[in-house]
Amino acid sequence: MQRRDVLKAGISATSALMVGGAPAVHAGTHYEWKMVTAWPKNLLGLGEGAKHLARTIKSMSGGRISITIYWDGELVPAFESFHAVSTGKAEMGHAAAYYWADIHEAAQFFAAIPFGLNAQETAGWLYYGGGQELWNELYAQYNLQPFAAGSTGVQMGGWFNTGIQSIDDYKGLTIRMPGLGGKVISHAGAQAINLPGGEILAALESGAIDASEWVGPYNDLAFELYKAARYYYWPGWHEPSTVIECFINKYVYESLPLDLRQIVTYAMQAAYNDMLSFYTAQNNLALIELVTKHHVRLRKFKKATLARLGKLSKEVITDIAAKDPFSQKVYTSFDKFRKQSVDWNSVGEEGYSVARSLTYSPLSRRWK
Amino acid sequence: MQRRDVLKAGISATSALMVGGAPAVHAGTHYEWKMVTAWPKNLLGLGEGAKHLARTIKSMSGGRISITIYWDGELVPAFESFHAVSTGKAEMGHAAAYYWADIHEAAQFFAAIPFGLNAQETAGWLYYGGGQELWNELYAQYNLQPFAAGSTGVQMGGWFNTGIQSIDDYKGLTIRMPGLGGKVISHAGAQAINLPGGEILAALESGAIDASEWVGPYNDLAFELYKAARYYYWPGWHEPSTVIECFINKYVYESLPLDLRQIVTYAMQAAYNDMLSFYTAQNNLALIELVTKHHVRLRKFKKATLARLGKLSKEVITDIAAKDPFSQKVYTSFDKFRKQSVDWNSVGEEGYSVARSLTYSPLSRRWK
Repeated sequence: MQRRDVLKAGISATSALMVGGAPAVHAGTHYEWKMVTAWPKNLLGLGEGAKHLARTIKSMSGGRISITIYWDGELVPAFESFHAVSTGKAEMGHAAAYYWADIHEAAQFFAAIPFGLNAQETAGWLYYGGGQELWNELYAQYNLQPFAAGSTGVQMGGWFNTGIQSIDDYKGLTIRMPGLGGKVISHAGAQAINLPGGEILAALESGAIDASEWVGPYNDLAFELYKAARYYYWPGWHEPSTVIECFINKYVYESLPLDLRQIVTYAMQAAYNDMLSFYTAQNNLALIELVTKHHVRLRKFKKATLARLGKLSKEVITDIAAKDPFSQKVYTSFDKFRKQSVDWNSVGEEGYSVARSLTYSPLSRRWK
Repeated sequence: MQRRDVLKAGISATSALMVGGAPAVHAGTHYEWKMVTAWPKNLLGLGEGAKHLARTIKSMSGGRISITIYWDGELVPAFESFHAVSTGKAEMGHAAAYYWADIHEAAQFFAAIPFGLNAQETAGWLYYGGGQELWNELYAQYNLQPFAAGSTGVQMGGWFNTGIQSIDDYKGLTIRMPGLGGKVISHAGAQAINLPGGEILAALESGAIDASEWVGPYNDLAFELYKAARYYYWPGWHEPSTVIECFINKYVYESLPLDLRQIVTYAMQAAYNDMLSFYTAQNNLALIELVTKHHVRLRKFKKATLARLGKLSKEVITDIAAKDPFSQKVYTSFDKFRKQSVDWNSVGEEGYSVARSLTYSPLSRRWK
């Protein structure tokens, strides 16, 4: 139980010692912050999550912290948000850590790992399994304080026009799949490319790509991807619970009075819960609409295909871990928690879900 | 996305109109609150969750709200905490809503429903599916503002000394199982009784009871229940995600300045995430210790047994709903969300978990 205050413990040992160029701070100070994001304006789900976070911090602080959001390109391009906050051009950023793989490979462990932890387990690893301390250590090198500020939950496996009967069917396909999942399917013979979400539908329609993943039923419905692909594959092995992060300039964060630092910290933890709840509720509705209104054909990846993707995933991830000692340290912590999680999850949450399906299985039976 | 501020929206429409006996409130007011709980002193998990919540509210408010915790019997007995806060003897309480079934049957929908929602779905229903508004409406009758402030996640099915090969094996057994689960097994021919957690081990050892459920691996290990029972059954069909609640005297809550009301509200949402994360991490470790160190024999309920328990559960729950129009309204909302959830969960979280087990299945294969 000594880990209860891990969020707090990880961040502020030096904060009482702020000296030199620290701004004068007292209870009456007002903070006007800029939040840069990796999202286009009006992006459903993730963009709304950024707005929600800004609102809760403002309201809990009685207006002492006001946050203005800048979408992709408004202050800096999406993928420069990390650098912008690191250098103090903006006070905070809202993104996903796998965008920073080029800055440090280990960042990917704090976003989405194929066959990794689900959303509930990810929070367990971060808050009570040592994950947050490692994330703090990594981002401190870039003058940033990181937080988990949301989760999409499990995603979907992707939209295809050809059936995937075995791992061999990936060969020769051009598939929009970024990050580690993309590396895995490259190992299986596909060409993995990245495209912004808004360009996926046109690329599928033109045949420029053969298949694509995006997020899950809620976001995929909004982009009308069902118009250009026959099959909607599950499960989302490549992104089992993508963490949405918020990072704050470390100097800015540590200059805050203690009560505001706590407000920011717990606003993040509440936001993780809030976004995951939002996606859970909306994906429920969207999946039913996709199947019943748009007649989307759901297809399950075969066991042998998943097992092979699992092996390729392990190769890709252990390769990343081998690149430097810090990445190895993060992988060791992550993988230990993952092994423990598979045991409990098997008899706990998964065991329960399977049992519940025995008694209540309206649409889902015909999808298996 | 209009539901983002449901927590806020549900509570404070009248708060700007506080008149008459309202205390003078301004930014400098200090609040000294008493929190009564349904927990014995030093209870792991749930009791620590109450302490954590009190700490986060105090630290976020810069000490403007100080909370003193009173455990079972210190100010009032555990099961009088609802009444104590309702009448203003204490400002807040920490418990689980199924304790108030005698006050209003509908309360049980906000705690644990056999074959109901898992922890992630429960948060989805409360924040984005209409659940919180219904809970507000119910508790407002008793001058209380309710919040979800934690979750145990899925529980375990219970400790038995005889195997459960079919539903008929419940006949004649005396089983410690409170709440709706107890009603369900009564329908199956068992005698369901309730006992405080601290008395379970002795009752199992003396043969006063034949079987018992408690919480999950973490809490069950601490009480050494493995010493008195041969089999540890899964899944926990009767409590798939028990919500830990915090209720505040409505007059006290609405008298707060807006910033403190927001701090209290989001401290609750963060606490839900925090406790669930804590249980997830600790249950992982405890299950492995139970199996590898204490040689506990895990047993899975058979499909036919679970299917029959599911049918009995539906009968028990629809009986409750039929008792009054408000209970029917809550059941209708809950059941609608449940139906939607089973579809998405089947291809989403459950679909992913099953796929992951194909690639990584250390201990769990021998448990099936």
